[in-house]
Amino acid sequence: MTGPTAPRGRFITLEGGEGAGKSTQIRLLADRLEQAGIAVRTTREPGGAPGSELIRDLIVKGAVDRWTPMTEALLITAARAEHVARLIRPALEQGQWVLCDRFFDSTVAYQGAARGLGMTEMTNLQQLALGNFAPDLTLILDLPVDVGLARAVRREAGRTDGEDRFERMGQDFHSRLRRAYLEIAGQETARCQVIDADRDIGAIHGDIWKSVADRMDVTDGG
Amino acid sequence: MTGPTAPRGRFITLEGGEGAGKSTQIRLLADRLEQAGIAVRTTREPGGAPGSELIRDLIVKGAVDRWTPMTEALLITAARAEHVARLIRPALEQGQWVLCDRFFDSTVAYQGAARGLGMTEMTNLQQLALGNFAPDLTLILDLPVDVGLARAVRREAGRTDGEDRFERMGQDFHSRLRRAYLEIAGQETARCQVIDADRDIGAIHGDIWKSVADRMDVTDGG
Repeated sequence: MTGPTAPRGRFITLEGGEGAGKSTQIRLLADRLEQAGIAVRTTREPGGAPGSELIRDLIVKGAVDRWTPMTEALLITAARAEHVARLIRPALEQGQWVLCDRFFDSTVAYQGAARGLGMTEMTNLQQLALGNFAPDLTLILDLPVDVGLARAVRREAGRTDGEDRFERMGQDFHSRLRRAYLEIAGQETARCQVIDADRDIGAIHGDIWKSVADRMDVTDGG
Repeated sequence: MTGPTAPRGRFITLEGGEGAGKSTQIRLLADRLEQAGIAVRTTREPGGAPGSELIRDLIVKGAVDRWTPMTEALLITAARAEHVARLIRPALEQGQWVLCDRFFDSTVAYQGAARGLGMTEMTNLQQLALGNFAPDLTLILDLPVDVGLARAVRREAGRTDGEDRFERMGQDFHSRLRRAYLEIAGQETARCQVIDADRDIGAIHGDIWKSVADRMDVTDGG
């Protein structure tokens, strides 16, 4: 499946606010795709390639107001351009499917809507940086803000890497974020699927698998 | 001159290829403005503010192909957004004049023209990042490519910080760069002044001072 003559892989992104369970669901989806005989590469943003991880360190650590919103948006987009060029595009061209925890919708929702730079401006920035490159499918894990933040707080208990900057930004911020994701989903129905993430892990995975199987034309190998 | 009720300062940028003598000319211009009673802040790009200097370290060190051209353009623009927000705008609002070694024309010329991302695209990126913020005067130090590179090579002899990445890019790169700067100057005559930099330091400074005095309405205090 990974030879140079394999058909291009599919690019699937998972989006959503804090505590939505994206990383758990990516692992479950990757396992199931591999059982179906598909070569899978999982990655995340910001980061995902060596240079992008250096930029990630600048973005996610430090005080909430370390960077102006615009600087943050440009740094995140720089890391993304590198990630696409060095990892995502090459993997897709080799026939691998790429599953990515966050992609450009995060910039439109977080910096564009929640931090006030404008969703249109951030969409324009992504097109400037990436041209027409876009996910084949984006799964938006949706859940009430208080549920997501409560989950994120429990997760923080064992965390020592200082990467909780976005989670400390408050309820209003996360409400704007949720609305923005639902707006993107409403505008880009061909690419985006909203998943109700206020349920148990197995039920969420079931919906994700159904969406991927329907839209990407795969069937269980297991 | 620096109180909150002072009139807004002027923002002057120096541009040009390697070895054009920008840093020497900025020092001479700053001295002369200060002798005329003007509070001056000198700075440089990429860098100029604490966060911008962290981004600068990512940009200027390492192999020529460390970053894709687009990643580099986004990193440089991120450093610029921070520089404007944290240093340049506040200084101008306090009435200081800001002299900056490189600004957005460098991105249009280096990444847009010389590295092939497109001058229009890079101009759009600057407007997205900075809105209408622009220098009051841009002095473009112009000299033949071989003269500039020979000067830069002599300067390298004593250098140990690894910041010579752009200078190793070759003659064609620097020819495209020079043409791009002259194109910008031809399009933005109200803001830009080309200075013949293939002369001695005093003659170049004389032209720069004449341009600043004429356009910014200052007279010598000395």
